[in-house]
Amino acid sequence: MSAQQAMDAVSGRRLQALLDTLATFGPGEQGGMNRQALSEEDLQARGWLLDQARQLGCQVWTDGCANLFIRREGREDLPPVMTGSHIDTQPTGGTLDGCYGVMAGLECLHALQAAGIRTRRPIEVVVWTNEEGSRFSPGAMGSSAYVEPERLAVYRNNLDVTGVSVGEALDAHTARFPDLPLREKIPAHAFVELHIEQGPVLEQAAIPLGVVTGIQGVRWYQVRCKGASAHAGTTPMHMRRDAMLLAMDAARRIDALADQLATEDKRLTFGRWNVLPNAINTIANEVTFSIDFRHADPAVLAAFDAQLPGCLPGDTELSSLFSHAPTAFDPTVVGVLEQACTATGLAHQAIRSGAFHDAMYLAGHCPTGMLFVPSRAGISHNPLEFTEPAHLLAGTRALAWSLAALAEQP
Amino acid sequence: MSAQQAMDAVSGRRLQALLDTLATFGPGEQGGMNRQALSEEDLQARGWLLDQARQLGCQVWTDGCANLFIRREGREDLPPVMTGSHIDTQPTGGTLDGCYGVMAGLECLHALQAAGIRTRRPIEVVVWTNEEGSRFSPGAMGSSAYVEPERLAVYRNNLDVTGVSVGEALDAHTARFPDLPLREKIPAHAFVELHIEQGPVLEQAAIPLGVVTGIQGVRWYQVRCKGASAHAGTTPMHMRRDAMLLAMDAARRIDALADQLATEDKRLTFGRWNVLPNAINTIANEVTFSIDFRHADPAVLAAFDAQLPGCLPGDTELSSLFSHAPTAFDPTVVGVLEQACTATGLAHQAIRSGAFHDAMYLAGHCPTGMLFVPSRAGISHNPLEFTEPAHLLAGTRALAWSLAALAEQP
Repeated sequence: MSAQQAMDAVSGRRLQALLDTLATFGPGEQGGMNRQALSEEDLQARGWLLDQARQLGCQVWTDGCANLFIRREGREDLPPVMTGSHIDTQPTGGTLDGCYGVMAGLECLHALQAAGIRTRRPIEVVVWTNEEGSRFSPGAMGSSAYVEPERLAVYRNNLDVTGVSVGEALDAHTARFPDLPLREKIPAHAFVELHIEQGPVLEQAAIPLGVVTGIQGVRWYQVRCKGASAHAGTTPMHMRRDAMLLAMDAARRIDALADQLATEDKRLTFGRWNVLPNAINTIANEVTFSIDFRHADPAVLAAFDAQLPGCLPGDTELSSLFSHAPTAFDPTVVGVLEQACTATGLAHQAIRSGAFHDAMYLAGHCPTGMLFVPSRAGISHNPLEFTEPAHLLAGTRALAWSLAALAEQP
Repeated sequence: MSAQQAMDAVSGRRLQALLDTLATFGPGEQGGMNRQALSEEDLQARGWLLDQARQLGCQVWTDGCANLFIRREGREDLPPVMTGSHIDTQPTGGTLDGCYGVMAGLECLHALQAAGIRTRRPIEVVVWTNEEGSRFSPGAMGSSAYVEPERLAVYRNNLDVTGVSVGEALDAHTARFPDLPLREKIPAHAFVELHIEQGPVLEQAAIPLGVVTGIQGVRWYQVRCKGASAHAGTTPMHMRRDAMLLAMDAARRIDALADQLATEDKRLTFGRWNVLPNAINTIANEVTFSIDFRHADPAVLAAFDAQLPGCLPGDTELSSLFSHAPTAFDPTVVGVLEQACTATGLAHQAIRSGAFHDAMYLAGHCPTGMLFVPSRAGISHNPLEFTEPAHLLAGTRALAWSLAALAEQP
C-alpha cells in the first residue's frame, strides 16, 4: 500500500537538514529565530524553498497574499490534498513553530519521490504568509486571506512599526519573484497541518503523536471593578469599598462558573491586572483585570457569555476584548489521521489545540485536520522550543501516510 | 470652675480667623494647601505665629529640630501641659490636618486670656516640624527628635528631592529667626493633641467628639508568589502554576487569619499589586502584593507575624517593609478628655487612631492623649478635607477644658 511506502520512505536525517537550512535565514537570540513575515530573511528563505521545489520537480504558485503553493502533480487532475504551515517566527521564536509543518511537508514530497509513488490527487505544500502576526497585524493573515479573499484589501493598509504597509511588503515580494505565477483560491480535497503542540499535554502523557480534534474558541474580557480609595489605617472594614476585594471575589465567582461549565476542560486565566492607586496604605479605588476563557464547545462559550455578568458586583464595567468561535476538525480527516498514527506503531491520543493555527481558517474551506508532536516542557515562542528528533520523525511519518492515503481517495 | 470658664470663652469665629489666616501661607490646588516643612511658606507662617504668640504675651522657644514652643506661664513653675500638632501639609493637602490642632491650641490661649484665667501650670502650644514627611523623610521628624534627641544627627543628612538637606533647612530656620532662644527637652505634665479623624467613624456615627484610646500598630509586608509563565490556551489547569491564583489564595488565607485574630477590629489592606508578565493570554509567573495590617494590641500583631508565613504557598518570598508598635494613651489623660467631652454636653465616643500622629512619640515622653473631630466622608490629604465649623468649635472647647483641668493638677 502506497501510504505505508510513503511513510517508510521518510528520512529523519533529510528532515533535520531541511530544518537546519531553514534556520540559517534569520537567526535570533540564544539559538532562536527572528524571521518576520516578508522581511529580507523571509524572502531569502522563500528563495531557497523555491529552489527546493524545483529540484523536486514541483510547480509553485503564489497568490495576492504571497502564500506559496508547491505542487506535486497526481495521476488525475482532481482538487489537491494540501499540507503546510508558516515560516515566519516570533521576534524571539524557535526553529519549529510553523517551520516544522512546512519542512515535514517538503520531506513527504521527497519521500514520495524516493518511493516512486505517484498519488491519484496532486499534493500541495503551502507556506502561509504571516501566521504569527508579530510584524503585521493580524496573525494568520495569509490563510485567512486565502479562504476569505475580501480580507486582503483591508490587510494591505496595515503598517509595521517602521510604517511599511502590508501592501508595500506584498508588492516587494512580487518584485522579488517576478516569475512566480499567480493563482486564485482553488477547491481542495483536504488540508492537514502538522505542528508542535506548544503545550505540555503530550510530553506529560509520554505520547509522541496527537490527533487534533479541533481548536478551542476563546473569549477575552476586561473587568473594571470600582471601589473608593481611603486610608488603610483609618477606615474600618465595614465602611470600605475595596476594589481589590471586589475583584478577587469576582474572580472567584468566575472561576466557579468556569468549573461548572467546563469541568475538566476548563482553561481560564486572569493574566493582566491594573490596580489604582496601587499604594500600600491606600485602599484600591479601581481594579481592572482580564479574563481569557477557552473551550471547544460553542454552547459552553455561550453559557459563559450569558452567566459572566452575574458573577460581577454592581457598578462593574465588563468589556469584550476578543472572541473567536471553536473549530471542529473534519471527522473523515481526523479518522485518516488516526489510522496514520496507528500505522506508525506509536502511541497517539486525541487532543484539542489551545493555540490558533492556519488550519482554523482552512477548516472553512475544505475538510481539515491537524497532527501534533510534543513540545519539551510545553515551551514555544522561545529559543528553548524543542521537540525530540524521534518525535519530529514520527510526526512526519504520520503526515506522509495521511497525505498519501487522502490523495488516493476518489 | 476654671475649666468650664476656659471652655466657654472659646470663640468659633476667632478660631476660624486663625485657620483662615494660616491657610494664606502656601495655598495649593483646588482650595487645598501645599506648605512643605521648612519651606519659605512654612517660614512665613511661623513668622506670623511668632507675632500671634507675642500678642498673647507668650514666650517662644525653638529646639534643634525647629519645633516651636509657645508658652503661657502658670502660677507655679511646674512642668507644663503641652498641646499642639504640625503646620506642614501634604503637597495636595487640606487646611485642617495638623493645622487645626495648632490653631485650636492658640485659641485656647486666647480663651484663657479672655476669661482672665491664670492656670497653676504653664501651658505650651507646640508646632512639631515635618510631621507629614512629604518633603523630608521620615514623618513625625520634630516630635520623634524631641523625644529621642539622638535621632537628629541622622535626620540632618536626609535630603529633599532638590538635594537640600534637613540640616541646611534647619540652619536656614535658625538664620531666619535669630532671636528665638533654644531649649532642650523638658519634663511635661501631659500632652494633648487635637486632630481631625481622617477617617469616617465619627461622621457615620454622627458623634462630634472622639476620645482616642491609642494608635494602632502596623505591619507592612511584601509577598512575592512565584509561578511559571505558560500559554493560556495550551496549558491545562492541572499543569499550571499560576502565580495570580497562588496570590489570591494566599490573600484569602491572610484575610481569614486577620478575621480570626482581630475579629471586628480587623484592618487589612492589599493595596499594591504587580503582576508579571501582565499579559491577557499568558499565565502569570510572578505576583507581588503588599499587606497593611493594623491593630491596637501588640499580642495580635505578634500573632499575625507568627502565623503569616503559614498562609503562604511554598517558594514564596515574604519581606517585612515596616513595623510600628501600638501606642496606648495614658488612662489619666484619657479620663480627663472624657470629662472634657462630657462638659461640652455633646455626644462622644472612644476611638482608636488608624493614622500616625506626633502624639505617638510624645507618649514616650509624658502622659499623652488625643481628641478627634469628624472628617467629612473620612477624606484627608486632599483639598476636599472638611470638618463642620460646629465640630471644630466643639473640639476646641473640649481641648480648652482639658488643658485648664490638667494645668490645675498638682
